[in-house]
Amino acid sequence: MVRQSIILAARPAGVAEPHHFGRITGEVPVPNAGEVLVRVIWLSLDPYMRGRMNAAKSYAAPDEVGAVMGGGGVGEVIASRHEGFGVGDIVVGPFGWTSHAVSDGNGLRGVDPGLAPLSAHLGVLGMPGITAWVGVTDILKMQAGETVVISAATGAVGSVAGQIAKARGVSVIGVAGGADKCAYAVETLGFDHCFDHRAEDEAGLSAQIAGVAPDGVQGYFENVGGKTLAAVLPHMSVGGRIAVCGTIAWYQGANLDEALPLPAVWRRILTQRLQVQGFIIFDHFHRYDAFIADVAPMVEGGSLVAREDVANGLEHAPAKFLAMLEGGNFGKTLVRVGADP
Amino acid sequence: MVRQSIILAARPAGVAEPHHFGRITGEVPVPNAGEVLVRVIWLSLDPYMRGRMNAAKSYAAPDEVGAVMGGGGVGEVIASRHEGFGVGDIVVGPFGWTSHAVSDGNGLRGVDPGLAPLSAHLGVLGMPGITAWVGVTDILKMQAGETVVISAATGAVGSVAGQIAKARGVSVIGVAGGADKCAYAVETLGFDHCFDHRAEDEAGLSAQIAGVAPDGVQGYFENVGGKTLAAVLPHMSVGGRIAVCGTIAWYQGANLDEALPLPAVWRRILTQRLQVQGFIIFDHFHRYDAFIADVAPMVEGGSLVAREDVANGLEHAPAKFLAMLEGGNFGKTLVRVGADP
Repeated sequence: MVRQSIILAARPAGVAEPHHFGRITGEVPVPNAGEVLVRVIWLSLDPYMRGRMNAAKSYAAPDEVGAVMGGGGVGEVIASRHEGFGVGDIVVGPFGWTSHAVSDGNGLRGVDPGLAPLSAHLGVLGMPGITAWVGVTDILKMQAGETVVISAATGAVGSVAGQIAKARGVSVIGVAGGADKCAYAVETLGFDHCFDHRAEDEAGLSAQIAGVAPDGVQGYFENVGGKTLAAVLPHMSVGGRIAVCGTIAWYQGANLDEALPLPAVWRRILTQRLQVQGFIIFDHFHRYDAFIADVAPMVEGGSLVAREDVANGLEHAPAKFLAMLEGGNFGKTLVRVGADP
Repeated sequence: MVRQSIILAARPAGVAEPHHFGRITGEVPVPNAGEVLVRVIWLSLDPYMRGRMNAAKSYAAPDEVGAVMGGGGVGEVIASRHEGFGVGDIVVGPFGWTSHAVSDGNGLRGVDPGLAPLSAHLGVLGMPGITAWVGVTDILKMQAGETVVISAATGAVGSVAGQIAKARGVSVIGVAGGADKCAYAVETLGFDHCFDHRAEDEAGLSAQIAGVAPDGVQGYFENVGGKTLAAVLPHMSVGGRIAVCGTIAWYQGANLDEALPLPAVWRRILTQRLQVQGFIIFDHFHRYDAFIADVAPMVEGGSLVAREDVANGLEHAPAKFLAMLEGGNFGKTLVRVGADP
């Protein structure tokens, strides 16, 4: 059996490009005592991976040049010398951009394949889902009758965040890139409004938000930075909360001019008594059971919609990832690496 | 009897200068039914007043051109047609930059003249004191064993904040403008360290902080913005808190280049999971009794030192205020308007 993997071939100094990735093949590894061998079925592609391509220390260790790209996936145990997992188990874990992975059980979690399609464990029931849920519930603490703005509104996190907020009686304003995404956010996801940041400059976007939120915005779920942040900030009401979950507009070193000057931002934080809270989901996994108890019934009942944007075949992962960084995805971005059992 | 007042003569478009103020004299007003007449003894000069000289809406209404400058003071009731206050009462209230003021009791508060010198009610036992106390206690939630950086360390707020933090077992790093202020912060106020932002560039200041806080800083009491913020931010540890109380370095439209780019700040907030919280003391007056219960004994016992920087005579208020905005004060800035009773 051949193992296929995607490695980090070189660190990008700015915009990441296809040549920063490489494909390697090799023997499928053999599990040692205490280990399992997993056949990867789905690979999750997430914006945080761009940060790990840099050498700089972030909240997680960087990927190493020449090593398999890191990332989470869902797979099937096909050999086990680990007493906690048996052949045929479906597991979620940090397998990386690869077709087969050996695990000592660290970070491995069995999932119920009957609960939802397997890919859901990388999306609405996985890391993006709990990120959205924690952001709305614990960080923004959105209350019925309030208004929240959600950037990257049709992305894996934003789409779930908005639907959870709607379910709690919160008025939801999405911001997304493209008329098709905005139509989807309103018509399918049930957002109250969605504005297209590609069609408007900062002033136009700001005016659109003001038009539908004349009394201001109490929460902002920050996934992007850039122009959207600049357009939202002036409308934050007294005591407003900003959950900083990502700043994808700036990840590639682009759009750095689309940023308010810090003195104006700090002044706004002061005069409006804003709370700006950065959060990383790794700190909040103790909320997993509460998240599943709340969200799984919504998924099963069909009231929470989760759109997926799938590339078929591991070899397409780099191109799909790079497109996602530029907003070219529409929904949770996944790579189909292997067949369902 | 003649009433003297300082008015806002013109709005500054940048740096405020003496010609933006004017002096007027007139008759001392006569209280109507339900009003008191107060002879002002002390006027408080505070950085927030600079914001009110602008037309832009801030957290409080702007001063009007031609009207008496707003501000808090302590004075003596010399005529009363208000059932809650009698002649001879010592009161704190929003009298403005004036020698005599009429009040309907709104915002007026009687104080015990035996508790401390009258000026203390504008400083350590007044608005700067409760600002410091709320910032350390409720916003930063500083705990024993943690480290806090306090900017404007010898100012009315910073000096009290640092002493309160020290009393709770917190390690305190001050930043102030001048070697004399830094020596005072360490030798008299008991701060662990104090660094002079006038003697160092951002990198130097940053290196000094790193040198005494190798494990990072958990709290930052932000009074200034500018270079100090840029030097502190890289040292905030995971889960660190920033209380944004003021940004005086930027109030006059200066030092705007001494600001990190917003993308870097937002990234830092995310990767370190920082909490940045703006606060304005008007929202926290319900904490007044708890503040007094905690701090008044420290003042009476002499363990909390409060230095004052006094101008004698209302006519000197504009020059004193402008010097304070440039860091020319050393302690709580006050104007002696009238004699003690």
